[in-house]
Amino acid sequence: MQTDPHILRAFDRDLHSVQALVVRMGALVEEAIGKAAQALHGRDDALANSVRREDAAIDALEEQINADCARLIALRQPNAGDLRTVLSVMKVASNLERCGDYAKNLGKRTTVLNQSAPIGGLSASVLRMAGAVQQQLHAALDAYIKRDADLAASVRARDSEIDQIYSALFREILTHMLEDPRTITGCMHLHFIAKNIERVGDHATGIAEQVIYLVTGALPADQRPKGDTTAFETGA
Amino acid sequence: MQTDPHILRAFDRDLHSVQALVVRMGALVEEAIGKAAQALHGRDDALANSVRREDAAIDALEEQINADCARLIALRQPNAGDLRTVLSVMKVASNLERCGDYAKNLGKRTTVLNQSAPIGGLSASVLRMAGAVQQQLHAALDAYIKRDADLAASVRARDSEIDQIYSALFREILTHMLEDPRTITGCMHLHFIAKNIERVGDHATGIAEQVIYLVTGALPADQRPKGDTTAFETGA
Repeated sequence: MQTDPHILRAFDRDLHSVQALVVRMGALVEEAIGKAAQALHGRDDALANSVRREDAAIDALEEQINADCARLIALRQPNAGDLRTVLSVMKVASNLERCGDYAKNLGKRTTVLNQSAPIGGLSASVLRMAGAVQQQLHAALDAYIKRDADLAASVRARDSEIDQIYSALFREILTHMLEDPRTITGCMHLHFIAKNIERVGDHATGIAEQVIYLVTGALPADQRPKGDTTAFETGA
Repeated sequence: MQTDPHILRAFDRDLHSVQALVVRMGALVEEAIGKAAQALHGRDDALANSVRREDAAIDALEEQINADCARLIALRQPNAGDLRTVLSVMKVASNLERCGDYAKNLGKRTTVLNQSAPIGGLSASVLRMAGAVQQQLHAALDAYIKRDADLAASVRARDSEIDQIYSALFREILTHMLEDPRTITGCMHLHFIAKNIERVGDHATGIAEQVIYLVTGALPADQRPKGDTTAFETGA
């Protein structure tokens, strides 16, 4: 039915151009997370505000990707396998859009945190965590573009490391709150920032799972390793 | 092309059956949120654990909806308008799945909170907030099934009320932490619970926006920038 090479090429060409948008979106999101963590660490309001403003470009890209995918489906009427690929593009764009929101939120909380004194070395820990998450996101998108299930599997495996960094940071934040109640409000913001960065890591894993789905035809059956145990912590 | 009444009926029948799954999924999610808040308020470990277990059924429904939608697209090759409807089904299912996760997380944190003394009247405030969010979710799904853009617009308008309830609860939590540092760990959990319930409200708004998109053909203009990314094409 879809054996006419003309039609096949048209689908591939359309897919390629929409995937180029995903790559651009991914680059913007990685950059936003890095800049947001740097703005926090450097107490840089201007940088934080630019991250907040630039989220609009990420949202606009998602809208365009969704519109292009819908047009692609309607126009090319892809077969089941191709359709799965197009639907995965929309899933990945949706993951990236959420990550952009988290970066924006990080920028917002940074401008609030800059109004009071810095709290210990917490922002350095956040910066390290953001760096690790950026790498995960980059590897996940790389795996996506190359359809590399092994690389995707390694992204999944490393997610528990991010969760462990988050858990350590959570305990660090808790210690500051208990030792100096004046830091409580700031610590609440930092806790959200840490949790949101951990969620970006979860979305990187989500993208990696889409890759495994695309390559193998099934989502990973095993429950992926979860290292964030703070929901179970009863504290001091 | 798609004027054969036989084909039209087949699409509508398929759409109807997949939408029935969305309705069932929505009912499970509403119930999970209500039960989770009650488990917290009543310090009921058994109820909290049942919410955690039952999330698997919600996840399974999303998987089925996605598979059914993909099959529907591949089989019926819907025109642009019908395709938009099918894609919206997947978006709504994705919103509901996230809400289910939040309910599950609420259950998890409840079993932890039950290990220490209750903190003031905070769980009653959480219960009220959960009730308001359940209503929002119910109205959003109602608007979705009836394709009622007015009802959807009212859901969007009421989201700021949820945000206000959350803000008041945030201040209440902060006060407890400052007055009695022994409550800090518990308050961190309660803060997450409150934030997650607020996020369920955001997803109800997301569903309402899908309704507006379906009925009017465009997302509400004041919410998100549309798909025109030309302003960013030459950006750095």
